[in-house]
Amino acid sequence: MSEDGRPILAVTMGDAAGIGPEVIVKALADSRVHRSSRPLVIGDAGTIEAAVELTGVDARVLAVHSPAEARFAPGTIEVLDLANIDLPHLTMGRVSTMAGQAAFEYIRKAVELSLAGEAAGIVTAPLNKEALNLAGHPYAGHTEVLADLCGVRGVVMMLVAGALRVSHVSTHVALRVACDRAQRERIVTVGKLTAEATQRLTGERPRLAVAGLNPHAGEGGLFGREEIEQIAPAVADLQAAGIDACGPLPPDTVFLRAARREFDAVVAMYHDQGHIAVKLLGFDEGVNVTLGLPIVRTSVDHGTAFDIAWTGVARPDSMVAALLLGAQMAGSARPSSASLARG
Amino acid sequence: MSEDGRPILAVTMGDAAGIGPEVIVKALADSRVHRSSRPLVIGDAGTIEAAVELTGVDARVLAVHSPAEARFAPGTIEVLDLANIDLPHLTMGRVSTMAGQAAFEYIRKAVELSLAGEAAGIVTAPLNKEALNLAGHPYAGHTEVLADLCGVRGVVMMLVAGALRVSHVSTHVALRVACDRAQRERIVTVGKLTAEATQRLTGERPRLAVAGLNPHAGEGGLFGREEIEQIAPAVADLQAAGIDACGPLPPDTVFLRAARREFDAVVAMYHDQGHIAVKLLGFDEGVNVTLGLPIVRTSVDHGTAFDIAWTGVARPDSMVAALLLGAQMAGSARPSSASLARG
Repeated sequence: MSEDGRPILAVTMGDAAGIGPEVIVKALADSRVHRSSRPLVIGDAGTIEAAVELTGVDARVLAVHSPAEARFAPGTIEVLDLANIDLPHLTMGRVSTMAGQAAFEYIRKAVELSLAGEAAGIVTAPLNKEALNLAGHPYAGHTEVLADLCGVRGVVMMLVAGALRVSHVSTHVALRVACDRAQRERIVTVGKLTAEATQRLTGERPRLAVAGLNPHAGEGGLFGREEIEQIAPAVADLQAAGIDACGPLPPDTVFLRAARREFDAVVAMYHDQGHIAVKLLGFDEGVNVTLGLPIVRTSVDHGTAFDIAWTGVARPDSMVAALLLGAQMAGSARPSSASLARG
Repeated sequence: MSEDGRPILAVTMGDAAGIGPEVIVKALADSRVHRSSRPLVIGDAGTIEAAVELTGVDARVLAVHSPAEARFAPGTIEVLDLANIDLPHLTMGRVSTMAGQAAFEYIRKAVELSLAGEAAGIVTAPLNKEALNLAGHPYAGHTEVLADLCGVRGVVMMLVAGALRVSHVSTHVALRVACDRAQRERIVTVGKLTAEATQRLTGERPRLAVAGLNPHAGEGGLFGREEIEQIAPAVADLQAAGIDACGPLPPDTVFLRAARREFDAVVAMYHDQGHIAVKLLGFDEGVNVTLGLPIVRTSVDHGTAFDIAWTGVARPDSMVAALLLGAQMAGSARPSSASLARG
């Protein structure tokens, strides 16, 4: 797969009407990306060609039909061309069934290649959920599509911004439901996957912080009992499994402590607890990593940004960071089957 | 009260065994404080004297018995001396009934002076809740004491760090309870008090952001219905009252947008939503402001820090910021009686 040492990354184009094509071609012009990986766009070659023209990036677009066909030569952007966008009939910045269906096909192809070992991991540009649903794929988002295509449950969303790594016990559910999801067993699963991924990234035994659910981590039971009944027992389980975990810690300072390098990763109890911190500390270079899949997957942490799509102003920082982190994760040990069993 | 234009601020000493005395004497050595206010410590003169010795601050401590007696001369720290700390019998960094009772008496005195117009506002150093409770005052914290002494309900905690101002619909309750507290009427009260205080601080009509409760502000009802049933109607009420309010906005980006000056203040739905953001953006200079009281009150946003108390290392940044903000608020219009009626 990677006789020259650089892993092949399947880069899905996302929704063609959004900023995906643009941030991909800009990111692939960054030499750090090519030093660490061999990126293969899974998308529509005509759309990528249009993005190259829009941005003025100095690159030649080559359509290929398999990873084996790709040469990864300097100055080229190679696209595994699914030829599924009728560009003259696509309205940029708008939800469309065509782009939704096409985005789904990129993911499906990228998963196939990764499961077959033809790619070492997947890096995804944003898709539009409404377009995906219009095209008959009723998923809440990317992560759910990937879990389904890989046949796993219980995946974990980790956000990475520089040295801040934050994984989430729950994500796209109401806050009341998130309170119910803060269960010992799930917290242990998330903690183990987080420790494993962090170790893969840093090469060292990680120091893991587990946040509380309630203000002041419950203040000894005064402001909620989840810390006593679920979170503290989960931390004890993680410690018993040999993980350097501590908590439950007060949520309003744990991220600051992690940003100051006191911890290598934080387990957040719900979506906004982690997202508020990561977005404040690393908005333009945040990367979304999915743990618990049998494949490596990183993603930009922004959406399709239809309001600025195809105007040339979108910043590729998050895509560059996703490519570099994907290369790093794909270049180290593959996810173990043990981690899947926990899902 | 302030013929020289600088408001008199009653600065409560907090728990004598904590970092309160130290941060006060360090903060009062800052010339910006004296340019904007006439600070009068409400505390124990012997303890303040000890803090001056510890820190090496160049100041003379003068005990007075009323604000009228104070001269506010350069190089002096004037203390309305309640003489209620037996210093040789106080163990620094430990919870004690004596310090808890003394801290309560400082607040009571400061409220008396403020309600009588002898002080223009209160700035509080941290107290220890356990010590307060040991001394027979079963309050959850400072804010509850102040509300009780002022005879009001429904006060609002606002955190200020630079240009970021965040008020909270609920604070010290379990997250499940916080979900129940995100009610239209309360959100409107908090929004009005926040807009009023922000206008007093900036002198301009504020742009107010109202955060959602759920991830993605509920994503159109998919992740919770509080946005539809409570928050959006509250925003409409605020707009109808002439306030430039918008929302409910996704919680994970609203604080970043406010930090970038898109809004002047944010209404957060629960403690950690606001606190995570403010602590990440302004940990050393955060100020806690209580809205809805008949008096001006600002406070440091840190605790007694018993672990470092009386070692000389505590930073006065938050106390300086609390004094400057207190002076600014006390120097502008007093809280209107209208704002109390909303409590």
